Amino acid sequence: MSAAKDYIRPIDFKRGRVDLTHGSGGRAMAQLIDELFLAAFDNDWLRQLNDQACFSVPAGRLVMATDSHVVSPLFFPGGDIGCLAVHGTVNDVAMAGAKPLYLSAGFILEEGFPLSDLKRIVESMAAAARQAGVPIVTGDTKVVEQGKGDGVFITTTGIGVVPADVRVSGDRARPGDKILLSGTLGDHGVAIMSLRENLSFGTSIASDTAALHELVAAMLAAVPDIHCLRDPTRGGLGATLNELARQSGVGMHIDEAALPIRTEVAAACEFLGLDPLYVANEGKLVAICAPEDADRLLAAMRAHPLGREAAVIGEVRADPHHFVQMTTSFGGSRIVDWLSGEQLPRIC
Amino acid sequence: MSAAKDYIRPIDFKRGRVDLTHGSGGRAMAQLIDELFLAAFDNDWLRQLNDQACFSVPAGRLVMATDSHVVSPLFFPGGDIGCLAVHGTVNDVAMAGAKPLYLSAGFILEEGFPLSDLKRIVESMAAAARQAGVPIVTGDTKVVEQGKGDGVFITTTGIGVVPADVRVSGDRARPGDKILLSGTLGDHGVAIMSLRENLSFGTSIASDTAALHELVAAMLAAVPDIHCLRDPTRGGLGATLNELARQSGVGMHIDEAALPIRTEVAAACEFLGLDPLYVANEGKLVAICAPEDADRLLAAMRAHPLGREAAVIGEVRADPHHFVQMTTSFGGSRIVDWLSGEQLPRIC
Repeated sequence: MSAAKDYIRPIDFKRGRVDLTHGSGGRAMAQLIDELFLAAFDNDWLRQLNDQACFSVPAGRLVMATDSHVVSPLFFPGGDIGCLAVHGTVNDVAMAGAKPLYLSAGFILEEGFPLSDLKRIVESMAAAARQAGVPIVTGDTKVVEQGKGDGVFITTTGIGVVPADVRVSGDRARPGDKILLSGTLGDHGVAIMSLRENLSFGTSIASDTAALHELVAAMLAAVPDIHCLRDPTRGGLGATLNELARQSGVGMHIDEAALPIRTEVAAACEFLGLDPLYVANEGKLVAICAPEDADRLLAAMRAHPLGREAAVIGEVRADPHHFVQMTTSFGGSRIVDWLSGEQLPRIC
Repeated sequence: MSAAKDYIRPIDFKRGRVDLTHGSGGRAMAQLIDELFLAAFDNDWLRQLNDQACFSVPAGRLVMATDSHVVSPLFFPGGDIGCLAVHGTVNDVAMAGAKPLYLSAGFILEEGFPLSDLKRIVESMAAAARQAGVPIVTGDTKVVEQGKGDGVFITTTGIGVVPADVRVSGDRARPGDKILLSGTLGDHGVAIMSLRENLSFGTSIASDTAALHELVAAMLAAVPDIHCLRDPTRGGLGATLNELARQSGVGMHIDEAALPIRTEVAAACEFLGLDPLYVANEGKLVAICAPEDADRLLAAMRAHPLGREAAVIGEVRADPHHFVQMTTSFGGSRIVDWLSGEQLPRIC
């Protein structure tokens, strides 16, 4: 990032639009960085104006996670691509049991995109980063010609530090372990799909997008030996449980009646032909722990605002096929397979 | 990243194309990760199949840098978007005097993009990462509908460790310091523009894309107190010197006759109406050091294959206006201002 202070006039964030000069490495790019990104993200690392951020870390284990965000539409009930890009990567870092430290952000802007929308998105990112306590310390901006992008794509990368006694990993689920879910399923995906389909379901359905690292910290304080954590985003709970089953070489069994789903989300899913098991969430997590730790973990989750509706939804079983099975509300049984097709494109 | 092993048939990398299921979080995405990204990048961090990579670092200073790559065309003489995405971020990390440790990669793919091209790009990234000794340890893949992207965009983020005695920063240029350039100007930008304009200049002009961290390590071994390092990418040498002049609150003076430029690049620039001072480079660096260190630094640069044509190109001067000035080959003087318009869109 760079800066030049003697601009002829300030950027017109009301009527202006992104043009190719904003990605050129010249004066217009420097001005956009100064007047938008530095102003919103506002921290000492960015103000160094180097092409990288420098910071000190203690010796130990770090994690690094990255997510590209292409959600469409860019603004939706409960959030926008900006806060989503912060939450998504903070959560990927937190799912290692790590405390997120720093974020980077790479923007790919489409020529002609309204600067007012970009400002709104960047300010939403800044607010989400401030609220999470995780500064955006370095970044990059590119501009592509009209018709070669779609408004704005944001790739965030996060690093975090793993406490010494924490060993969370997707390969640690063991037969007998309990599977916990932090709250209701499907809110994010249904909020996006309702908007796309121009549907309104009486009561409003909003994305659950949220940063989960403080919930995770509270959970680890109660149960340091959590075996697995993962946020069921794209592909929903179904994909997440299948991933964990493969990684750990186990089967899983969940109970449909135990799954927390808001009535209006269930109704919307039925109307839209979506299976809530595969709908993306952006503020929920799955945790797996030893059976003797489950009550303590559940209590810690329910004591946190983002885990109030947490539930034990099933258990890990020995299974050479690594199947995820579900007892349905009617008492039957079904396999929860990998999603085969594309249920919800560009959901995050 | 995730995996499922029981795919019905392997991906058809000859005739297949990216479709929306490759970004869905389901089986097709898991298969693409397994058969393309894991196979090419091939390292223990990716094989953990968690949504983040975990590694140990010593106590000390780290740097983090990110770059989104949108170069068009995707393949060009001397490289492609894949190796460029590795080199670009390795270089941003190295320009802090740091040793690059790990990279992440976020892919935004356009529906319909040939899987054969994607494979070629990913394998080029993998080769560049291997050659640089910097593994790609975590990543993400998103797919957008045809017409909402442009083949492939790649955002890489790197972290590196800064040696204890190194204090490279853009604000450390002091009047009297010498300005060194590691090699010829304009090769990358002219290679791309020639291709776009469908021009051939008799001799081939190829991008200089390369990872510079080993050159930097050799330079720091000779002169630990290098004041500034920066790679003159977008906006070229002109933008880089103006950035450093602002950051350090100094002026700069360079000598046109000292600038290494290949004859065919100079000719192409003249033909294309480009000023080589503003043309992007992807394998060059600017270094600023105390005058008494300049000879030693120059010798270290010339002893390295990527610095063979290094030259002292000018010096830092006191200047309250922070101007970059150049003595032209004809003995005149000109201001090298910030680039105002867009010289070369989507050059990196």
